[in-house]
Amino acid sequence: MKQIPVRLGKRSYRITIGRGALNSLPAVLNKSFPSKKNIVLTDRTVGRLYRAEITKKLGKLSWIEIPPGERHKNLKTVEAIFRKMVAEGNRKTGLIALGGGVVGDVGGFVAATFMRGIPYIQVPTTLLAQVDSSVGGKTGVDLPEGKNLVGAFYQPRAVVIDTRFLATLPRREFLCGLAEVVKYGVLWDERFFSFIEKNVGKILSLNHNVLESLIARSCAIKAEIVSKDEKELALRSLLNLGHTMGHAIETLSGYGRIRHGEAVSRGIVYAARLSFARDLCSQNDWMRIVSLFLALGLPVKMPSYPASRYRKVIASDKKASGKKINYIGIQKIGRAVILPLTPEEITGAL
Amino acid sequence: MKQIPVRLGKRSYRITIGRGALNSLPAVLNKSFPSKKNIVLTDRTVGRLYRAEITKKLGKLSWIEIPPGERHKNLKTVEAIFRKMVAEGNRKTGLIALGGGVVGDVGGFVAATFMRGIPYIQVPTTLLAQVDSSVGGKTGVDLPEGKNLVGAFYQPRAVVIDTRFLATLPRREFLCGLAEVVKYGVLWDERFFSFIEKNVGKILSLNHNVLESLIARSCAIKAEIVSKDEKELALRSLLNLGHTMGHAIETLSGYGRIRHGEAVSRGIVYAARLSFARDLCSQNDWMRIVSLFLALGLPVKMPSYPASRYRKVIASDKKASGKKINYIGIQKIGRAVILPLTPEEITGAL
Repeated sequence: MKQIPVRLGKRSYRITIGRGALNSLPAVLNKSFPSKKNIVLTDRTVGRLYRAEITKKLGKLSWIEIPPGERHKNLKTVEAIFRKMVAEGNRKTGLIALGGGVVGDVGGFVAATFMRGIPYIQVPTTLLAQVDSSVGGKTGVDLPEGKNLVGAFYQPRAVVIDTRFLATLPRREFLCGLAEVVKYGVLWDERFFSFIEKNVGKILSLNHNVLESLIARSCAIKAEIVSKDEKELALRSLLNLGHTMGHAIETLSGYGRIRHGEAVSRGIVYAARLSFARDLCSQNDWMRIVSLFLALGLPVKMPSYPASRYRKVIASDKKASGKKINYIGIQKIGRAVILPLTPEEITGAL
Repeated sequence: MKQIPVRLGKRSYRITIGRGALNSLPAVLNKSFPSKKNIVLTDRTVGRLYRAEITKKLGKLSWIEIPPGERHKNLKTVEAIFRKMVAEGNRKTGLIALGGGVVGDVGGFVAATFMRGIPYIQVPTTLLAQVDSSVGGKTGVDLPEGKNLVGAFYQPRAVVIDTRFLATLPRREFLCGLAEVVKYGVLWDERFFSFIEKNVGKILSLNHNVLESLIARSCAIKAEIVSKDEKELALRSLLNLGHTMGHAIETLSGYGRIRHGEAVSRGIVYAARLSFARDLCSQNDWMRIVSLFLALGLPVKMPSYPASRYRKVIASDKKASGKKINYIGIQKIGRAVILPLTPEEITGAL
């Protein structure tokens, strides 16, 4: 079992990671929540798999289940949750967000805004949520016009990550989470990147000790970056490595066909290629990144849309002020840099 | 022209108050907002009265108008505003909330949650919004189940209060604002209470110098309390003076029939009466409060529902944990105190 502290002054909290970390949930609830009257928010898939076990650990709780999937990450779902919470809870109720990224984002936003803020705990059940959404306090929902357009920065009181959840996670979802894990190595920590290279077999066979280290180091890197820059100014934008092109791939292919992680692995490889083309990183580093993604079973090739279509999406995506966009490049494995580039320059290596 | 600082660390801001304070708006916008692409949120009534004048001062801006009235203070209105903002603005857009309490609460909540927070400025046009909602950072909307159940604490970058708005404010709304002004005197500042007593005539004839002092001192008192206790722990709860019984009156009479201010004046008088009955304040203080409200044309008598109905509303209103409620009583004019009382004790002076 590992503990990662996330240092944010008064809003600091701990992430507990390991096989069987769920066993610590009763103690964490006791410490984090002022009341015994707490609510679990989950989706139907996770509820079906884990409701019985968690009820056994925590006793009788109110459960709110939402339909699974990104298309329910909207204000209609949020309002339905609010109305159930009025019936089941009060100002002192704590919320346990049990699920993947959608449940985490929606649950965090509900906690941030129900009665102007109630305490909440994240129990992420997908690898992506474990290494990404559980640190940083970004919460929110989508509008028909785009993803995450509504939200708040709101920190949980604690995060509990049980690696056993990964045993019931569909393989494709697991691989998508690995794309973000590799990202941390590429942008921040060459030693961690090497650790992943050396442990590909154990990772893919779900060795719990290796998974624990993998998740713990990912969370620690994100926590280090977020602690220094909570509201996304310069440093935090490094976490967007692979995401400018990744989002463009998701948009061009139609959301849902290519998963987020599958777009991010391609986006990171593209960032390495562009960085190499601009004489910023070595060909060897670029190739190490390609090889690692291939070994993990993640895609590395950009879908072959015309460059003009990529440019158009990138230019409109961020409603970028001015003409340059803060693109994240790579100096070497373990060091990402902010490159102010035009959409033309960004698509220059396609 | 008066300036009141609201001290909240990094989120500190200034309130500018006076006849013609609107003239300072271009400079305030320049200082507060990172972009020139800003949006005015208002309701149709205020838009009809002031859009031309403000456009003349600020140039062409995007305007979003919502229907007037508390019944539109809901998530449906918020979603409609979000969608217009996606079309008209971006992450750096500033929001100007121009209107009464509903526009201020909705606008503040939209600013708190659009793209996880954009800067906003309050330009309150009713006396109630000027002395109450413009300090404290409480934002939010109603659910069918109750008022202000969804929201956030989110501070504006500046507040601009022009006393000229009060000339177009319906008389009844103006008097309702005065109930909250008197509240500040009763709970915090005997000298201010005396100032109001001495200036009843000038207040009712909208003397701008007196109004400026009235609003400035009200904001300063609220700012002093909020600065010491941003998230409503002990001190901030003093601001609920008159509101426990006030809310009960509003609930029992059906929302909208009795205005908030008309319920608050009665609630404050009741708090004085109960405090006198419990040997806490003098009969003279109680009578001064009654006399001042009567001189201002505000109601002082409790509607004659059975005490049992008041008790029931009070007990369920706050979903109070435990049996006692933090009722706000008066030791003397200028000093309010927290009294932990049961609903039976609270209704004991009916």
